[in-house]
Amino acid sequence: MATNRSDSPGRNDRGPVPSDTPPVRQTVVTLDLEGVLIPEVWVATAEATGIDALRRTTRDEPDYDVLMGERLATLHENGLGLDDITQVIAGLSPLPGAREFLDELRATTQVVLLSDTFEEFARPFMAQLGWPTVFCHRLEVDRSGRITDYVLRQPDQKRRAVEALRGLNYRVLAAGDSYNDVSMLGSADHGFLFRAPENVIAEFPEFPALTGYDELLAAFGPLLDSKVP
Amino acid sequence: MATNRSDSPGRNDRGPVPSDTPPVRQTVVTLDLEGVLIPEVWVATAEATGIDALRRTTRDEPDYDVLMGERLATLHENGLGLDDITQVIAGLSPLPGAREFLDELRATTQVVLLSDTFEEFARPFMAQLGWPTVFCHRLEVDRSGRITDYVLRQPDQKRRAVEALRGLNYRVLAAGDSYNDVSMLGSADHGFLFRAPENVIAEFPEFPALTGYDELLAAFGPLLDSKVP
Repeated sequence: MATNRSDSPGRNDRGPVPSDTPPVRQTVVTLDLEGVLIPEVWVATAEATGIDALRRTTRDEPDYDVLMGERLATLHENGLGLDDITQVIAGLSPLPGAREFLDELRATTQVVLLSDTFEEFARPFMAQLGWPTVFCHRLEVDRSGRITDYVLRQPDQKRRAVEALRGLNYRVLAAGDSYNDVSMLGSADHGFLFRAPENVIAEFPEFPALTGYDELLAAFGPLLDSKVP
Repeated sequence: MATNRSDSPGRNDRGPVPSDTPPVRQTVVTLDLEGVLIPEVWVATAEATGIDALRRTTRDEPDYDVLMGERLATLHENGLGLDDITQVIAGLSPLPGAREFLDELRATTQVVLLSDTFEEFARPFMAQLGWPTVFCHRLEVDRSGRITDYVLRQPDQKRRAVEALRGLNYRVLAAGDSYNDVSMLGSADHGFLFRAPENVIAEFPEFPALTGYDELLAAFGPLLDSKVP
């Protein structure tokens, strides 16, 4: 058996091996969801329902708790419950090429989606994406189907998930498009911005900025199952 | 926002809530692979190739390193490389009902397979199971396709994965059939033996022992997205 621990690179139970061929770590790719594989859910919901107030994002209201409170109040004022939103979402599609990209990636390595959306919103998209694993948050819904609150599973959950995967001795490759992805990209072994806005690209030049799924697959390729540390 | 931290159960930012309605944790189900969803790979390979020596398991040779050394030597003696084995495996099927069970579970909660097999052996089964996420180990293969060694990703990886998921504030439900699953079951919030041999069932009476996928789904059901702690 070859060992595969960070404290004993280059050795296995049959004696030392040359230091230029350390055991290769297995890889997990973590991907943001909205903007990377699916459209922005609230923007799409605003468009599908015609309710402009739902179009506001963290760029308009930086306090997420205030923003979510407004969103839930807007849904309630318009008599919209969870079922209405999931019906809207079920009519939406992943971004063009996202399913094919994900299928190719999942046939090559392990993939975990890390999203700050809610599992109730994610589920209709997951059905269309072939049920990849997704770590996200959840809503609280009362018996009438009204969304009464939201529950963030834990603070900075994307970074925490990457650190947990690294703790399981995985090499983590990560891609995301937004400010809430930066700590994930920074804690990964290799982080990539994907379809990020210009201001994010300018602010974080340490992450290569890519725009096409083919480009992202090509960037991941040499890092998967390779000798590259 | 409701908080969802173990150090503040029963409270959210709008003040205390009754202690009988703590925020509900999201759930991940971790499943063993061989014996639970797919046949035992080495036994199946022995049957498909007619090489009886590959039928030996940890019950015959408790030292895993010795056993794997024998297996790799047997493959080499018979001129079998990785491609031969994966072709054998590609002709095998998941256990009857496994795909349907997994599909139903993945539409309800998050699922991560935790297996002590190797990703090269797992991959043909994952294709047939719809590419669920699997954490396992890997083989080392030389340019000729000969399996030269194996690399365990980390010791006691199943328990470590469950602990990592719990550290991400997930409630973990686990099911497995064998000795190497016991630490996973014990570290999960709820552990189940599934199609375990009688000696394992007798030795670990603390884990409910189930045999049908419907039975396992029924056991998971009340624990998913419920108020049950």
